[in-house]
Amino acid sequence: MSTPHIHTGRIEAFSDGVIAIIITVMVFDLKLPEAIHTQGLTLALKLILPKVSSYVLSFFMLAVMWVNHHQLFHQIRHADRRLLWYNIHLLFWMSFVPFATNVLGTYLLEPMATSLYGAVFLCNAISFALLRSFVVRHKLLHESVNIDRHVRIQKKNRLAIAAYASSAVVGWIVPALPIVLFLFVPLMYVIPENIFHHQE
Amino acid sequence: MSTPHIHTGRIEAFSDGVIAIIITVMVFDLKLPEAIHTQGLTLALKLILPKVSSYVLSFFMLAVMWVNHHQLFHQIRHADRRLLWYNIHLLFWMSFVPFATNVLGTYLLEPMATSLYGAVFLCNAISFALLRSFVVRHKLLHESVNIDRHVRIQKKNRLAIAAYASSAVVGWIVPALPIVLFLFVPLMYVIPENIFHHQE
Amino acid sequence: MSTPHIHTGRIEAFSDGVIAIIITVMVFDLKLPEAIHTQGLTLALKLILPKVSSYVLSFFMLAVMWVNHHQLFHQIRHADRRLLWYNIHLLFWMSFVPFATNVLGTYLLEPMATSLYGAVFLCNAISFALLRSFVVRHKLLHESVNIDRHVRIQKKNRLAIAAYASSAVVGWIVPALPIVLFLFVPLMYVIPENIFHHQE
Amino acid sequence: MSTPHIHTGRIEAFSDGVIAIIITVMVFDLKLPEAIHTQGLTLALKLILPKVSSYVLSFFMLAVMWVNHHQLFHQIRHADRRLLWYNIHLLFWMSFVPFATNVLGTYLLEPMATSLYGAVFLCNAISFALLRSFVVRHKLLHESVNIDRHVRIQKKNRLAIAAYASSAVVGWIVPALPIVLFLFVPLMYVIPENIFHHQE
Repeated sequence: MSTPHIHTGRIEAFSDGVIAIIITVMVFDLKLPEAIHTQGLTLALKLILPKVSSYVLSFFMLAVMWVNHHQLFHQIRHADRRLLWYNIHLLFWMSFVPFATNVLGTYLLEPMATSLYGAVFLCNAISFALLRSFVVRHKLLHESVNIDRHVRIQKKNRLAIAAYASSAVVGWIVPALPIVLFLFVPLMYVIPENIFHHQE
Repeated sequence: MSTPHIHTGRIEAFSDGVIAIIITVMVFDLKLPEAIHTQGLTLALKLILPKVSSYVLSFFMLAVMWVNHHQLFHQIRHADRRLLWYNIHLLFWMSFVPFATNVLGTYLLEPMATSLYGAVFLCNAISFALLRSFVVRHKLLHESVNIDRHVRIQKKNRLAIAAYASSAVVGWIVPALPIVLFLFVPLMYVIPENIFHHQE
Repeated sequence: MSTPHIHTGRIEAFSDGVIAIIITVMVFDLKLPEAIHTQGLTLALKLILPKVSSYVLSFFMLAVMWVNHHQLFHQIRHADRRLLWYNIHLLFWMSFVPFATNVLGTYLLEPMATSLYGAVFLCNAISFALLRSFVVRHKLLHESVNIDRHVRIQKKNRLAIAAYASSAVVGWIVPALPIVLFLFVPLMYVIPENIFHHQE
Repeated sequence: MSTPHIHTGRIEAFSDGVIAIIITVMVFDLKLPEAIHTQGLTLALKLILPKVSSYVLSFFMLAVMWVNHHQLFHQIRHADRRLLWYNIHLLFWMSFVPFATNVLGTYLLEPMATSLYGAVFLCNAISFALLRSFVVRHKLLHESVNIDRHVRIQKKNRLAIAAYASSAVVGWIVPALPIVLFLFVPLMYVIPENIFHHQE
């Protein structure tokens, strides 16, 4: 109790709180359009399908980020005051996901909406990569952690950043292409790399 | 601290966060209808009674799920990367409960609304059953846990899945019948099975 | 880790989550009335004063409940499956506070609004008293806990229940009187009783 | 487990929950203006720029407060019933940040809006200073903590309080000046003071 080392417990708890709110409260944008009440529920449900699709996409992408955040912090021995800020920087960009999701749900397949969505996830990918490379550089990892795996993940990150960056461009040519890219990136991360060398 | 075993603590914390938000934020749909302000508060309160009923129903159903989730994770020795995804899959379907509750509160006793509500809980029941059977199959449970009880719960699960599936059909014949089914299923789970063999 | 005893950690975490959401999200009802935008900010701020007052009142009352919940669970040795439900029952009634607060903020000093607000807190007081008496009766407390203090608290509880019950009646005669009662009750509980006999 | 000492764990968890909600749910005020839908997304995005700016400012200011709260509680040996209330007092004023942010986003650079925003953060700064001085006076800190640093922080606090108080005044003369002050104060606290004497 009297050690001045900062455990990662409270950072994880705060991050979990923020991510849980972001991922859940998005669902409250799924409201039946009021004006349609008289024309029946079936039509109303059809009209919110784009909103449901963008919600499902964002839920999946945030879940992948949470799994990887969970995996990364599980490898961290102790925190550091700068780590707090790298993590807050990531949470800051995650907090824009509900806004981008709402815009995408309203303007599905419009290049401006897919560009905005791509830009938000580009910032997320960059801030996650910065967090990871800070952790690796400053030796905050447990000793049993295999650094090679982090190098492999950093290669993936460059691919993800390129995919998000290009999604902001290709949407102006082929409107549906950014959606494909948005699905492709998280699929690379679904199963986090097994990173411990010895015990696991 | 340096063990690579993934403790269930952070999964539980994240799940608790998500479930706490889902269960609580639903109550913010209980708003007095603006247009009625001049006609008195009593009428306004009467008009939101269907919304209150659907909220109470969903609160109860989610509480039952939380109690059983709590009970299940209490029996898990350590987590596993696939377990993260089984749990996220469950949280995904739970996150649709506020939407289905809102629709049910607006269109109480309309077959389309009860079908949607039943379908959401059908997906919840299936994903909870998948989570439980994954845990049992992959031997993530403490050794003192009595597997027989899980077999008994899995029988209950099949009954619950059948009830939810039929709720989507019977509403078109007897509109009030799905509500009875929605109440019947959680009642089976109110008191979670006592699952430890030796110590308790 | 392998003991089947249910620790209170996850109940506390879930309760904290629910209470934190209830207490915080109420503040999102504080919105400037749209129609007044052109008439200046000062007027708009004046118009939401009743909403601010009811928010401050509810924040204070919920904070008192959280402090006492914190104090009670701090004394509990281990949980029990029925304890989960006594706690959920309390959270259920707490979840109606934002709704009652919203109604009170819209119809401040109208007997119907103060009655509703009083009724919600009556249910809260009763469910908290039930939770406490369950804990005392079923010997879930640490051995160092002084039971006499719980008896004294239970006397306070009867007073609180009487105050809330009468608030539903007196509002029809003197509209401001219920507000006085709402302030009086939490004041009794601001400093939780010091309950440990030996060490503290 | 049976010690009557109140650990800070649950206070931190509750505070984290409240701060996570405050910081995240603000983002849900970022909605595209409905009326503009027909005039294109680019215009709509331009119109919500003031809202985005005030959100970014508040996110940053709340993040600084969270980092310092985290740092302070990390140094606290054990809690105390009065500490609960000093902390709740701080959370109370933090809970007004989303409201002040919303007003600032709607009336950016209007003196009334910057005054309100400054007043809310003045109350936050005062309640944080009260919390810190309570902790120092009542010897709730770990023994390894260097008290000198707290004295230095208290000097900073007086500066912050003066800045917020003057922001309420100067806005009536130079509308943009309060925004500069709002940015200046958190910058003083971005890196929390390194406070442990011996080990770190």
